[in-house]
Amino acid sequence: MPGVADVRAWLGERRDATRFQVGRIPFAELDGWSFDGPTGNLVHDSGRFFTVEGLRVSIDGDRPREWQQPIICQFEVGILGILAKRFDGVLHFLMQAKMEPGNPNLLQLSPTVQATRSNYTKVHRGASVRYLEYFTGGEPVRVLADVLQSEHGAWFCRKRNRNMIVEATGDVPEHEDFRWLTLGQLAGLLHLDNVVNMDARSVLACMPGAGGPTALHSDVELRSWIAAERSRHIVTTERVPRAGLRHWVQGPWSIDHEERRHFRVVAVSVRAGNREVTRWTQPLFEPYETGIVAYVTRTFEGVPHVLARARVEGGFLDTVELGPTVQAIPGNYAHVPASERPAFIDLVSSADPSRVRYSAVHSEEGGRFLNAESRYMVVEADEDEAPIDPPAGFRWVTPGQLTMLAQHSHYLNVQARSLLACLNAMAARGAAGAALTP
Amino acid sequence: MPGVADVRAWLGERRDATRFQVGRIPFAELDGWSFDGPTGNLVHDSGRFFTVEGLRVSIDGDRPREWQQPIICQFEVGILGILAKRFDGVLHFLMQAKMEPGNPNLLQLSPTVQATRSNYTKVHRGASVRYLEYFTGGEPVRVLADVLQSEHGAWFCRKRNRNMIVEATGDVPEHEDFRWLTLGQLAGLLHLDNVVNMDARSVLACMPGAGGPTALHSDVELRSWIAAERSRHIVTTERVPRAGLRHWVQGPWSIDHEERRHFRVVAVSVRAGNREVTRWTQPLFEPYETGIVAYVTRTFEGVPHVLARARVEGGFLDTVELGPTVQAIPGNYAHVPASERPAFIDLVSSADPSRVRYSAVHSEEGGRFLNAESRYMVVEADEDEAPIDPPAGFRWVTPGQLTMLAQHSHYLNVQARSLLACLNAMAARGAAGAALTP
Repeated sequence: MPGVADVRAWLGERRDATRFQVGRIPFAELDGWSFDGPTGNLVHDSGRFFTVEGLRVSIDGDRPREWQQPIICQFEVGILGILAKRFDGVLHFLMQAKMEPGNPNLLQLSPTVQATRSNYTKVHRGASVRYLEYFTGGEPVRVLADVLQSEHGAWFCRKRNRNMIVEATGDVPEHEDFRWLTLGQLAGLLHLDNVVNMDARSVLACMPGAGGPTALHSDVELRSWIAAERSRHIVTTERVPRAGLRHWVQGPWSIDHEERRHFRVVAVSVRAGNREVTRWTQPLFEPYETGIVAYVTRTFEGVPHVLARARVEGGFLDTVELGPTVQAIPGNYAHVPASERPAFIDLVSSADPSRVRYSAVHSEEGGRFLNAESRYMVVEADEDEAPIDPPAGFRWVTPGQLTMLAQHSHYLNVQARSLLACLNAMAARGAAGAALTP
Repeated sequence: MPGVADVRAWLGERRDATRFQVGRIPFAELDGWSFDGPTGNLVHDSGRFFTVEGLRVSIDGDRPREWQQPIICQFEVGILGILAKRFDGVLHFLMQAKMEPGNPNLLQLSPTVQATRSNYTKVHRGASVRYLEYFTGGEPVRVLADVLQSEHGAWFCRKRNRNMIVEATGDVPEHEDFRWLTLGQLAGLLHLDNVVNMDARSVLACMPGAGGPTALHSDVELRSWIAAERSRHIVTTERVPRAGLRHWVQGPWSIDHEERRHFRVVAVSVRAGNREVTRWTQPLFEPYETGIVAYVTRTFEGVPHVLARARVEGGFLDTVELGPTVQAIPGNYAHVPASERPAFIDLVSSADPSRVRYSAVHSEEGGRFLNAESRYMVVEADEDEAPIDPPAGFRWVTPGQLTMLAQHSHYLNVQARSLLACLNAMAARGAAGAALTP
């Protein structure tokens, strides 16, 4: 069985073979994209793919807030699908070496199929999507997971993708851009920076588990807490013209927040050999700096738990989803008093290395986000730092409970799912993940 | 243990004791409610309770449609809660004899607590909500069910209520408007017309079950089908001013569809003794005729199944929820060709009495809807009438699978939950429900 080094070598070889180039361009050089006259929304001539519009968000509750921001609107549901197959009784997953223009290293391991509806209905008039037939009923399969999951609520307006894992029952043709990998190999790769892409992490998190050991709170208590958190907030969102957004400024190369915080909208030109079409331009969202995505972990009565946070994000379809303990871009809070900084951010960002159970840099979806990297961490804490009765909006859950919730829509946000894939990778690695292995 | 007749007698006695009157009034006589100047939206002076606005719905997919309609907007999440307690080891449920102005017989059995957020935060300055403390952490309880569930997607814009069943661990004070009833008694009452109100039916459907016998499709296959159905439709909704709605006409007493179909908006004046305040006026939605809400049922390999339909309704938060086999107001289809009538409507409405396993008239929520009655039915079919491979958008499921889905938001619409409570009542009644008792 090839090791992590072999997979990296193969990725490097595919990277060399495809010779792709990505460069920033001014908006005026976008091909097929333009700013719509009255609204200033960034749209494609075909009316498909996605648009960049404006969103006004107001949150009523304990801490009322209101803001405006650019937002990516993409209401079609795409397919993120991993094809699985047993070889000698061991389940393998067919992973793709795929280029996405926003990835810092361009090419990462992605699901077998990663297709917007525009992709597979051929709006772009490119090649057909390889292996798609396994996810659309064309080939016989056994469904292991199939669930609509949200993506970044801070950047997307109600975006969801169908996260699927299906097991092939017959022979599957090979292709040089694809490799069969075991969960063990994927676990090893998930410990490396920028190898397993966001979509792959999200889909892997939806793999059903065997049920876990006894949790601090029962499943019904956990769902009850989620219902309570959803009732506590009233979130109102309204799509508004992009052009009139308060505090956002449009230049020839980018649309920026006037304090240069959060993210900016930019444009790139892409040339590639193994994509469905060989040249295109497109807008991307670019965060200003690396984020932190972290679970604080503790063991109660021998059972590892992580601290989940009920998060309100403007782009969620439902009011609240569970996120990691910390999910923040630290620089966004540089100007605010300590009392308004996200809870546990200092615990996580200044943790002694002996407390860090997992740490790797991963990118968010490279088809929409440019250099959107976050350090994903799991940090062990004690009762003083993270009490068994946590602050409002937080709750201790087991990885098994997160896996149960990941079988349904609207429960785990994309960062929580990414980090769940990392938790599972820690457990699979054994010794390195001992703290979280039941 | 008191029988069904005793409960009806008690309801009649409470009805006599409270002397309430409901009368239609013109909009001009609404007190505290008015039409907002520019939009024509019907709003309360306090800015709370609910508003009647306009909604534009467009559905992209196999059969694109677009329409405009008045819609009730109420974004606060209320609590529908049933308090349970064991007496001699048997679980009892504390049901309330509650008046709602839109119920044809005014007073029906409702959950212990039925409170909008406005109710329990005292916007109306009335009496406090009895037993509310059991649902808000004030009294120790064991949570049996707690889930946000949608209400009528054809009449509400993204309305959800928290459906809760909690078991009291200590003594519970008595009150003359409340009675402890067993599941068996409730099953008997659910076979009567207009006794168990919509909120009670919805909450009872969320009571967890023991898991059922083997279904035709596994749970993961069922969820996969739901994910596929959600991906198949793109639903876009936009709140628009009520005043400019196409095909709707405002008169002094009502707002009607120009073809007098669907429903109309009316106003009523209410006087009552046992409500939180003793007199008020309010708008209500009034359908033009009685609806049909029905499951077609068949038994496969000894296991009873019902035929669920993936429904798109404009007011759903998520695109699709599962509804009954038939959910329709027959008159709305009187003018359309047979091929466009809802599937299975003729099978259900002209079923031979020997095929009818359940039939009772129930009302929808009497706090928002006036005389909104539907005949709830369960009708046995054969392979010719309802094949094991049903038309697109339909799928055979077991009552146990519906119960599993009812533990989560976004799966079962309110009619499906009502009818699930009826299915459970059939099973509890034994002989009468033999066809659906595993």
